[in-house]
Amino acid sequence: MGGTAYLTSDRVAYSPAAAMKKRYATILFLLLAVAGFGPPDSAQQKVRRYRQAHELPLLTEYMALLAIPNVAADTASLRRTASFIAGMMRQRGIQTRLLPAATPGVPPVVYGEVRTPGARRTLVFYAHYDGQPVNAAQWAPGLSPFQPRLASGPVSQGGQLLPMIKAGEATNPDWRLYARGSSDDKAGVMAILAGYEALVQSRIKPGVNLKFFFEGEEEKGSPHLGEIVEGNRALLASDLWIICDGPVHQSGQKQVVFGARGDVNVGLTVYGSRRPLHSGHYGNWAPNPALALAQLLASMKDSTGRVSIAGFYDDVVPLTALERAALARVPNLDATIQQELGFARAEGSGQGLNELINQPSLNINGLRSANVGAQAANVIPTTAEAMLDLRLVLGNDSERQVAKVVQHIQRQGFFVTTDEPTAAERARYPRIVRVAPQTGYNAERTPMDLPLAREVVAAVQRTTTRPVVQQPTSGGSLPLHVFKKIGATTLTVPVANYDNNQHAENENIRLGNLWDGIETMAAIMQLK
Amino acid sequence: MGGTAYLTSDRVAYSPAAAMKKRYATILFLLLAVAGFGPPDSAQQKVRRYRQAHELPLLTEYMALLAIPNVAADTASLRRTASFIAGMMRQRGIQTRLLPAATPGVPPVVYGEVRTPGARRTLVFYAHYDGQPVNAAQWAPGLSPFQPRLASGPVSQGGQLLPMIKAGEATNPDWRLYARGSSDDKAGVMAILAGYEALVQSRIKPGVNLKFFFEGEEEKGSPHLGEIVEGNRALLASDLWIICDGPVHQSGQKQVVFGARGDVNVGLTVYGSRRPLHSGHYGNWAPNPALALAQLLASMKDSTGRVSIAGFYDDVVPLTALERAALARVPNLDATIQQELGFARAEGSGQGLNELINQPSLNINGLRSANVGAQAANVIPTTAEAMLDLRLVLGNDSERQVAKVVQHIQRQGFFVTTDEPTAAERARYPRIVRVAPQTGYNAERTPMDLPLAREVVAAVQRTTTRPVVQQPTSGGSLPLHVFKKIGATTLTVPVANYDNNQHAENENIRLGNLWDGIETMAAIMQLK
Repeated sequence: MGGTAYLTSDRVAYSPAAAMKKRYATILFLLLAVAGFGPPDSAQQKVRRYRQAHELPLLTEYMALLAIPNVAADTASLRRTASFIAGMMRQRGIQTRLLPAATPGVPPVVYGEVRTPGARRTLVFYAHYDGQPVNAAQWAPGLSPFQPRLASGPVSQGGQLLPMIKAGEATNPDWRLYARGSSDDKAGVMAILAGYEALVQSRIKPGVNLKFFFEGEEEKGSPHLGEIVEGNRALLASDLWIICDGPVHQSGQKQVVFGARGDVNVGLTVYGSRRPLHSGHYGNWAPNPALALAQLLASMKDSTGRVSIAGFYDDVVPLTALERAALARVPNLDATIQQELGFARAEGSGQGLNELINQPSLNINGLRSANVGAQAANVIPTTAEAMLDLRLVLGNDSERQVAKVVQHIQRQGFFVTTDEPTAAERARYPRIVRVAPQTGYNAERTPMDLPLAREVVAAVQRTTTRPVVQQPTSGGSLPLHVFKKIGATTLTVPVANYDNNQHAENENIRLGNLWDGIETMAAIMQLK
Repeated sequence: MGGTAYLTSDRVAYSPAAAMKKRYATILFLLLAVAGFGPPDSAQQKVRRYRQAHELPLLTEYMALLAIPNVAADTASLRRTASFIAGMMRQRGIQTRLLPAATPGVPPVVYGEVRTPGARRTLVFYAHYDGQPVNAAQWAPGLSPFQPRLASGPVSQGGQLLPMIKAGEATNPDWRLYARGSSDDKAGVMAILAGYEALVQSRIKPGVNLKFFFEGEEEKGSPHLGEIVEGNRALLASDLWIICDGPVHQSGQKQVVFGARGDVNVGLTVYGSRRPLHSGHYGNWAPNPALALAQLLASMKDSTGRVSIAGFYDDVVPLTALERAALARVPNLDATIQQELGFARAEGSGQGLNELINQPSLNINGLRSANVGAQAANVIPTTAEAMLDLRLVLGNDSERQVAKVVQHIQRQGFFVTTDEPTAAERARYPRIVRVAPQTGYNAERTPMDLPLAREVVAAVQRTTTRPVVQQPTSGGSLPLHVFKKIGATTLTVPVANYDNNQHAENENIRLGNLWDGIETMAAIMQLK
């Protein structure tokens, strides 16, 4: 069936004897099934058979969803995306409506409900339909953010583009589907709705009331999610939110995540001369903003990658004993991932990835000043820009964390402004930086011993033979704080492959992950 | 007549009495001229009157020249540019031919000759018709690199776009003409050819044999100029090359420059992971190449802007007593320019611009890593790039200067390669940078007491009432070393305004400078 794309932990040794035993058991089971003997299909098997029989229509529908642009700036396309999802829900018999924000022009939440007679609990299934910004020029040849394409594997590792399957053809689980949002997070929308569809079509009744909540501003920092959630407090009453976003573990093992880091972006623009200057006639006299920016950024982290901003690691609420124990059980694939990613030394002074995602971070998302490569000219640029990304853990406050960064910048001798510098400011301050913090939010964590959470872990475990990884927190961020405001509890159950290029060019989903995700969501819907 | 765009030195005080006296003298002169009395027109006056009477055809021709793209990558357009210039020369009765390089595919030199009966000396007039790379998106609204447009002044200071003049209309000398190459250096081509035209049409005979030499690879570092010059050694025999490139002094005073700095560009690419990563899931574990690049660049200069690379200021040949004396006479407008450019502190530990351009320099021309602003995504970039520009003075060698930079990079713990890093290199070296030095060349200086050079200064002085500034060297660079190889002597006589945005977006020429340049070139052609 082709090599698996998953990384295998060193701890899971391959045993030829066990494999042989398993193969005989499978043959025996198939013989009994063909003969009409054996136990009736489990719900899990029914869901899988339904998906296997419907790969063409499911993929066709998913590719139509992916073909609608979903970046923040393109609000018209975001509305089309919302309408398309509402249509998907209605086709599945889900009562559907759009929940607008009080602020005009905001992409609406697509909301839906299915009441289960006799159910005692209610679960909300969350995903977001907006995606990160795109720069189409950076995508690999033949790929484009909103022209979904199948490939035989990761194109970065020689995967070839494939035509769409025909009726009667099956996909290979290691194939990739390329498009912005294919993993982050239209995959969540698709896994949830296809999971529900598979249940209904297989005549399996959900065990709980279901609510569906698809957001359109997550990648923008969910600036209006609070308005929508608080304006629909009664409608959204629930026992638990299932957040379907992010990747499963790098080992390919399914994962339940109890919290998420907070996040805030800060744009920086350093100013030089008003107009670009000839680097020969004025170089090393007129100040170079690219150099000043480099000096500023270099001052923010030491050579081991530790953030050197004063107080950056203060405020952190330590992990509980239960969380520390769970963290110790998370497989450590650092060496294997590092080799795959092709770098010789990780940041973090020897701490592992699992530990580091439980700490606040500072990352440079991008740099820009004038031009490089073939477009470079011999100039002193007028400005130099960077985008910072600060991830926050429990105890950090996004505004306080930004304030620490601003204070650090001031200590480096910069005048900090939030506007274009005035003539008076230019005349007065040798180093000027414009700081543009975006909307941020804080981290949240759900206690790992919450009974309903334990039931979710058990339901997910029923869909897989490998252990479900339990993470105290995700390295990525989710607007969980908003749900907390209406007293909701959240649990994240991701479906995407870890090597999905999410947030970047060539975003993709491994088809096996989408199919597994459908089974995961259907299993959770069967909780009583 | 509109405010002048020139900066005025503090030393030149405005005197109302002197201005009144001058005004009366002008009126008297005009009255005499109208009455048919007075001395016959000087050659200088005839050249000016010719230009004044032909602004429309001169501008029309120049704008047609500017409309042909001239960036290095677009060799087809460079050939069109060369043909167009050859046509301009033939129309003026100049014997013209293209001089190809031995290497195929190189934009040819456009060469021309005018023999002056009885002349004892020969001058070659040099300009280049290629331009720096462009990024059209960075130009101001309404402007485009190859759609020349007139404006009432600098668009950055509120200058308005103007329609082309009609027959009978005159231009204002403070108007600007916007296009790539309008100053650097199609202005040189135009000033030389229009200067010659004005002489011929005014029936003034040149005093020397004239040769015209227009290059098409100067902004690329003139990689094939040596081939062409050495392959045409006899054809190019001369007493002096007049290099018409660069800006006049910031005061607006005309300028003769005896040398030029050398130049070499070095591209840097720092590598991170093979694929872009989610900044939440991997940030502060996977190394960030933007941070590594910032740390590397920050290490290259101290907080005063002095280059901290070991040995960077070694090798420099000191200025002669004559050069030091000339430098001391160059007007110092630092404070005024600094105010106009809008920065509070210059680099260079208190040394002035005139001193600093006589030292080697290191400038960051551009930075790029992933995206910033609205396109920024929460990623760890895979690479971070910078382009360095090293300017060289007499004594520096371009390869030796690059070697010092490379050694510095290695001392910062980087593995330096000239190719994409291999898997083995990625696995072995924590910090990897790809270094791509471009073709560079060294500085040259002509002795300031050379008799023919003194004659050129005197000829230029005859076209202006303000003192001609004499610079030992130009901050910018010119491939003078190539001419030196065939024993030629060079002198640079620029025409462009200093605030021309040369090398950047919104490049422009002040029309008064183009008109003055025509007079300057015509005056030099009259040397005996």
